[in-house]
Formats: sequence, C-alpha cells, structure tokens
Amino acid sequence: MPHITAFARNQWYVAAYRHEVGRELLGRTVLGEPLVFYRAEEDGAAVALADRCVHRRYPLSASGLDGDRIVCGYHGFTYDRTGTCVSVPGQRRVPRTARVASYPVTERDSLVWVWIGDPGLADPDTVPRAPHLDAAGWTTVRGMEPVDADYGLLVDNLLDLSHETYLHGGSIGTPEVAETPITTEVDEGAGIVRVSRRMDDAECPPFYARSTGIEGRITRWQDIEYHAPCLYLLHSRIAPAGVLPGPDGSDPDGFHTEITYAVTPSAEGRVYDFWMVSRDWATGATEVSDYLRDNNHAVVMQDVDALDLLQRTLRSERDGYQELSINIDTGGLAARRILARLAEEGAKPEEGVR
Amino acid sequence: MPHITAFARNQWYVAAYRHEVGRELLGRTVLGEPLVFYRAEEDGAAVALADRCVHRRYPLSASGLDGDRIVCGYHGFTYDRTGTCVSVPGQRRVPRTARVASYPVTERDSLVWVWIGDPGLADPDTVPRAPHLDAAGWTTVRGMEPVDADYGLLVDNLLDLSHETYLHGGSIGTPEVAETPITTEVDEGAGIVRVSRRMDDAECPPFYARSTGIEGRITRWQDIEYHAPCLYLLHSRIAPAGVLPGPDGSDPDGFHTEITYAVTPSAEGRVYDFWMVSRDWATGATEVSDYLRDNNHAVVMQDVDALDLLQRTLRSERDGYQELSINIDTGGLAARRILARLAEEGAKPEEGVR
Amino acid sequence: MPHITAFARNQWYVAAYRHEVGRELLGRTVLGEPLVFYRAEEDGAAVALADRCVHRRYPLSASGLDGDRIVCGYHGFTYDRTGTCVSVPGQRRVPRTARVASYPVTERDSLVWVWIGDPGLADPDTVPRAPHLDAAGWTTVRGMEPVDADYGLLVDNLLDLSHETYLHGGSIGTPEVAETPITTEVDEGAGIVRVSRRMDDAECPPFYARSTGIEGRITRWQDIEYHAPCLYLLHSRIAPAGVLPGPDGSDPDGFHTEITYAVTPSAEGRVYDFWMVSRDWATGATEVSDYLRDNNHAVVMQDVDALDLLQRTLRSERDGYQELSINIDTGGLAARRILARLAEEGAKPEEGVR
Repeated sequence: MPHITAFARNQWYVAAYRHEVGRELLGRTVLGEPLVFYRAEEDGAAVALADRCVHRRYPLSASGLDGDRIVCGYHGFTYDRTGTCVSVPGQRRVPRTARVASYPVTERDSLVWVWIGDPGLADPDTVPRAPHLDAAGWTTVRGMEPVDADYGLLVDNLLDLSHETYLHGGSIGTPEVAETPITTEVDEGAGIVRVSRRMDDAECPPFYARSTGIEGRITRWQDIEYHAPCLYLLHSRIAPAGVLPGPDGSDPDGFHTEITYAVTPSAEGRVYDFWMVSRDWATGATEVSDYLRDNNHAVVMQDVDALDLLQRTLRSERDGYQELSINIDTGGLAARRILARLAEEGAKPEEGVR
Repeated sequence: MPHITAFARNQWYVAAYRHEVGRELLGRTVLGEPLVFYRAEEDGAAVALADRCVHRRYPLSASGLDGDRIVCGYHGFTYDRTGTCVSVPGQRRVPRTARVASYPVTERDSLVWVWIGDPGLADPDTVPRAPHLDAAGWTTVRGMEPVDADYGLLVDNLLDLSHETYLHGGSIGTPEVAETPITTEVDEGAGIVRVSRRMDDAECPPFYARSTGIEGRITRWQDIEYHAPCLYLLHSRIAPAGVLPGPDGSDPDGFHTEITYAVTPSAEGRVYDFWMVSRDWATGATEVSDYLRDNNHAVVMQDVDALDLLQRTLRSERDGYQELSINIDTGGLAARRILARLAEEGAKPEEGVR
Repeated sequence: MPHITAFARNQWYVAAYRHEVGRELLGRTVLGEPLVFYRAEEDGAAVALADRCVHRRYPLSASGLDGDRIVCGYHGFTYDRTGTCVSVPGQRRVPRTARVASYPVTERDSLVWVWIGDPGLADPDTVPRAPHLDAAGWTTVRGMEPVDADYGLLVDNLLDLSHETYLHGGSIGTPEVAETPITTEVDEGAGIVRVSRRMDDAECPPFYARSTGIEGRITRWQDIEYHAPCLYLLHSRIAPAGVLPGPDGSDPDGFHTEITYAVTPSAEGRVYDFWMVSRDWATGATEVSDYLRDNNHAVVMQDVDALDLLQRTLRSERDGYQELSINIDTGGLAARRILARLAEEGAKPEEGVR
C-alpha cells in the first residue's frame, strides 16, 4: 500500500474531548496502541492504560469499573489506576509482573492529550494550545469522525483549502478560495506551518452569510497555523468588503471564527478527525450554534467520504505512482517534511530529541 | 489464489453500452485500468480518459463536466477531452507534464469498445461485429452485471451450455441440452471458437415456449461463436420439431434469437458480464420484451451467484488443485488456450503482434 | 496472526447433530476440509463426501439428490454414496478417475462424528461417549453457533469457568465461581483433562433457581471432563446448601445437569460450537426446556461475542505477545499441551500413532 505516513511517537496527541472521558470506559487506539480511558473518582483526573488484560489479552475497554479499578470483563483481573493488577480470580497471590502500561495524559483547553512514546520525554508544557476552546467569551461546537485513510491525507486536505471551492461548494467554498494565491511560512524547528489566503472582495459563502447575517461581498481571511503533528488552527476573519481592523488592532466589525482540528493517527490507514468551530460573536444564539454544527459536520463528512475514496484508490495504485504538486501544495509538502523528521526522531528514543 | 486468467492487453473490450455514455461521468475499470467515460457535446463522440487526477490521484469519475472538460472534484484540476490539463487552482501556469492518458474508443453496434494496450495497434476495423444489436428489424433487451470472479470462469460458463440443464432448469435448460453431444471448431489464428449443439426432438423450455407460442416438441439449435477475448454470440434457432430451413436457406417458420455476451475483465477476480437478447420476431411486442428481459436477467443472476460461489471456493483451494475435463469442455479448453496466447502477445507490445 | 492452534487430524469430530443430516444436502467444513453430508434412503446411514465436484470444483452442497446420488448443480456430474462418479453430461463414458473422497462417519449419542485423517486409523469404538444425549430418562436442548475464533480459544474458555462470574453474571455466574479454587487432573495418555470446583455454600444463579425452583443458598458442583480434542462434558450438580449424596451414592435431592459441548475446528480461525444441556429432572416440562434453551443460547452468544472480539484483538497483536497464566489456567494449559501432541501425531500418519 503506498502513501503511508510514518507515526511520530514522541509527541502529544488528542485522544478525546474532556467530556468523553468519564465513568464509562472509553477505548481509543492512538498510533496503533490500544488504550482505555476513564476519569478517576478520587481526584477527577483522566487515566490512560493499555487496553489489554495481561491474562489473555481481552480488551479492558469491554470491561467495567469498580471505583477507580478496572475489572476485566472476561475473568476479573483487576487493575488500579497505575495499571498494577491488584486482584486475580481463584487465588490470593497476585503475580508480581501483572501490570499494564500507563500513559501520560494532560488536559488542556477541553482536550485530553496522550503521549505514546518515551514517557521520560513527556512534558505537558509542550502541548500546543487552543485557548478559545475553553475561554470565557467563546462558544464552540464540535464532533469527531474516524476516517479510513492515512493521516497524511487529512493533513494534506487541511493545509490546501483550495479544495473548499470544489468539495465544499454550497457551504464554505466559493470561486475566490481556489483562485486566490497563498503565502506560506514554515518554521521547521518549531514544526509549524502557516498558510494565509487574503481575499479582499469575495462572495460570502452560505456558511457565513446565514450565521453572521452579512449581505453582499466580503473581505475573507484564512490564516492556517498547523502545529505538527496534531493541532491545526484556522483563524478565519469575515467582514463586509473593505472593512479592515483599525490601526490599533481593534476590529469591532469583523467576525472571528476559530476552526480547530486535531489530527490523531489511530492505526495504519485510520485517523481520528476531531473538529471544532469556535466563535466570539452571537455566543448565546442556539440557532447559530445548531447551524454551524450541522453545516460543519456536513463539510467534515464530505471530507471523510473523499478521503475514504482517495485511500481506497491509492490502495489500488501500483507502487511508484506519481503526484504532481503546484504552488497550493507548498504548505502540505512542508508538513510532510516536518512529519517525516518528527517520525524519524521518535523512532530513536535513545537520542531523546524533541 | 489459483485460477487467474491473464489479461490480453492489445485487444478491444466492451466498456459500456452506447446509452450509458452521456453527460454524466461513468467510471469503469477495464483490465485493471480505471477509466472515466463521457460523451463530448462538441461532436457526440465517446471519450475515455484515465480516471486519476495527476495532482493527488483523486478519481475523475467522482468529478463533474464543464462543457467537454472534466473538473476534478477535489481541487479543480481541469482536463480537456484529450486528457491535457488546461487549468489548475491558484496560479495561471499549468505544468507542462499535467496530462492524463486517453484511450482509443470505437462505437459499433450499440457497444462502446475501448483499447487498453499499445494505442498504435488499435485498429477499429478489427472490432468483432454484432450487427443484430443495432439493425432494423431487430429488437434487443439487455443488461450488465459485475461478477466477482475471474473472467475465465465466465468464458468457461458460456462455452459449455450443458450447465443450462442444471443451473437454469425451469427457464432455458432441458434434459436434452446436457445429453446432446457437441461439435467444436477452433480457428486458432483468428481466435474464434465455435461450439454447436443440434437437438432434433427436444422439450421446449419455458423461456421459448411462452415467448414464441410454440406448443409441443421442438428442433433446437445452439451455435456458439466466441471471438476471444470479449465477444460471445449464441445463434439460437427454435422451430416445431422437424421444421427445418428450406434448401434455399429461407426459414419462415424458425424463430431466430441472437444471445450476445461481452466478457470484459475489470480487475483480477472481477468481470463485467454484458448480456443482450435480440430477436427478429414479435419485435413490436412489449410483453415479449419484458418477459425475455426478466427471464434472461434471472438466468444471468443464477450464473452470477454460481460464479461468485465458485470463485470463493477456488480461493480456498490449495495450489495445484485438479480439474477433470471431458468432451463438453473442448470449446472452453480451446478458449483458454487462445486467451493465454493473446495475453502473451499483449505482454510484448514491442513485437506488435496481433 | 498469532494464537493458531494446530489441527489434530487423526481424531473424531462432531460434524452435525443426527437430526441435521437428512435428505437435504448439508455443507460443513471440518479441519479445513469441505464436506457434504446426507442420509442415504437405502439404509438410513449418514454419508460424508468431499464437497467439490471433480469437474470444475463446484460445491456439491449447492447441488441436489437423485435417490442416493448427488447431481452437481453446475453440469450434472453424478456421484454415488461412495463418491464414485457414475454419470457425466454429453457422453456415455465416465472417466475412471472421476471420484470424490468419502469420509468415515459414526453416529453415537445423537451426534454425527466424522474422521478427517488416515481412514485406516478410524476406529468407531474410540469415539468418546455422551450417553445422556440419547438415553431414556433424559431430555436435551441444543444448538450450534459458528465462532470466528481459533478453536483453542473456545477450549480455553470452557476449561476455565471463572469467566462465568464476569461474562455470564446474571444467568449462570455468581461470585463464588471465580472465588473458589479448582482441582485439576490430567490424563496425558488418554488425552483427558478434569477440572473440578466444589462450592459448598453458594448463591443460586438465576439459570438454576428458576428452572429447579430451589430457593436460598446451594451446594454447587462443577466437574469438567474434557476428552481432547472435541468432546467437553460438564457434570453439574445443584442441591440446597448442605444436601449431599447418600453414602451409597443415591442422590434423590440433587439436580443433575449434563452440559455438553463439541468443539469442532472448521477452518483456521473458525470453530463450530455445538452446545447441549441435558437433565434428568422435570423432563416433561416444556417451559423448563424453553427456559434452559433460551438462557443457554444467550450464554453461548456472550461467549461467541467475547471470542470474536478476542480473536480480532489477537489478530492486531504483534508477534511474540505475552500471556500471563495463573492457577485457574491449569486445565487450559494441559489441554493446549495435549492438543499440540495430538496435532503432531496426526501430522505423521505414517507412524499410525493414536
């Protein structure tokens, strides 16, 4: 199978939304590692353990909680929140080696981040931030879709928004998106790719026309900020055509929307597509929230269908098939380069690079 | 997986019926090559292009037409009918190498034929003919079923009609079909296999009894003419028992039915089964057309189910499994021999054999 | 794929219940060998033949019977009960080599046993017995479920009943099953594993409370007797707590239930799970039969779901994954050892070991 993007292990990944981790066991696979999540009664912290009982490899996520302990649903092997087995059936002695791996977890900005690689390198302060997801004055709608595609295909998709015109015409795409050239900035060291597209006099797509109430042509800014490997921020500014921020940066007539994606490789050829739309306008309007949620979900499903199709197509390609890249791909190609470097670093944990 | 019949590349194949190729993009895979078909507004000609955008390999058949140009549904790369890319998003310059392959297409007798191999060898005059499909005085019912089986299994099926007695009893099969010996003629050079079965005093199967109105025993002739690899003609003559054509060849009391199949290998283990039933009698009778269409479709589905089952069965066989062939297989074995030779010739395009 | 238990060929296996083998052809795959079963009109004996026509490998189980002969559903090759081909289409001469394999079959205790290995070693007297299935004074409910799992996982499951507490809580599992230590006896030579669990003062699970009418605490004995590879007997005794058999072995106040399983490997990663529940109490009570059938079917489906899940899980494991075994696994580990030995013996038929 061609087009497999290697996993970068020594990195933080979004495994779940905060509200998904509770007293029901949640199974998620990240970088091919099966994990089970729950929230401890004791202190409310999120716990991530390997999702395989040491006895016969039964998935612990198909089991139940007894207080803060997981009781395996097959034969009752019982684990505490550190992954230590504390009870087995039919005997008092618990084998000393009975223990499942536990993974570093950090909660930030309503997201539950997990670290799969060398735990000694897991520094919570390096989690990239998206404060609008959890800040006063902001409202967010969100969802998650698993996609049967290499995670690199989703990164490609998000870094080249010219596809909005063709795949998402009728909701967020207009002719100007594909027509307008981009500027790209790459910070190789920090692993950040920035792609900007400034449209001065553009059609207002239905997604924004109906939610903001703007009539007529608009000024539309799309400023992408991709923190490889997982966090993607799209800073979107919409205003009536010609209306710009003041010289002091104030922008009372602009509509600011933060579109956030977390791209979490699940297994080879499978990726979790976490999507969030945050706004600091009309924050109390339920009908706006409903409209943005429904419409962004529809947009995401168009991407899911296209990426599933593309992956199936690539699976049938002969090895050594060709792509042809143009200017719009500058950001995506930079992202691929950074991901390859991060994967290579993660494959050599002894060097402790990060 | 055993029982894979090699593809013969330098040959014409039926990719679609004429009426299927229009202003909606049609995706079909022939000999493992993904193709997209449409009919040009300009001159009404059928166009066949490779079904993969040069940019990121997205299937063009999931895209749309702008006049006679295909606009890729993902990022808008635009191709003219020759496969040349004429427009890309975000820039004016189109890379010189941006082009998808175009395939020779010929329309004959209501069929759209495509050539996958060396285009320099594609001579439309070598397309085998089935004029009854598109001639005055004839009426045809037709359909197409994809089968999850090696195309060689479908050729086997069609060249040995003794299976009608067992698989299609109750519609076209009677005891006499399996009982009556065949005569086989093979023209190795032309790649044509002829198998004839002449039944002088046979039961009339429901398929013909109800459609022709004949009561009692019949004379039934089945004359197969297989033009390897794709076109299969079954010349069927039915008449009351003892009624034969006159010495001058006139045959006013015989019912002539032309049963046509096109056997088009789609991918390994998958074949398109195009089926057509043409008649020069009761040509205006809608109820006869409906009856023949419904019944032949039912017969084809019996074959589809049997071949799907047979292919699944063969997939579970150990390598080197045995078959046992008898007289009825003479035509099928000749066809396999010819297909192997055509495949071998097609694998050496530099010799330009045909 | 890890966790594949080798097949022991020179052994008897349950292929069907007696009532399943009749005048409709029954296809079953045992140890990877496709078989077709029917009952001869002539003498009522069960017949087992290879399920592949010699002509083109079509499954004979998709065919029909003409008296005691199978007529292939594709081209009519006809076989007698010995597997000899006696008729072919279109010619009088039947090729001398036209014959499908026939397999030794024995019917015992309402079960149809088949022998896949060296037929010269097939001694019906070595079939392990379960007379309660077909004896006066006993009533049996039964069913069969195919499981998409290595047959070794089902043997593991059945030999370690501590899982009843966790997987089957609410029907047959109570805390005492997992808490009570077992005793294990292994007869390596005879290939028999015995695992016993005696609970003196236990909760009565709903399965028995409702069917027997016992109220309050019980004495519960579970005595497993596994005749590798196929037959598993669970001798279950229930009585009010403290009620034991008399010194002479009489036991008028105990409820005896025989739970029988036949574990028949179908193909790699697929096993037939035949289950039977027999009783010598309330034998005429239809509502008890219905209750036990429905409840044991529900228990079996819990096992099926768990084993399907476990097998899918193991398929995604890296090679060399670890298990951790404890006292409750003594019986299961002995069974694995015996199965490995039987498989090795069956792999060397020239030595004729059994």
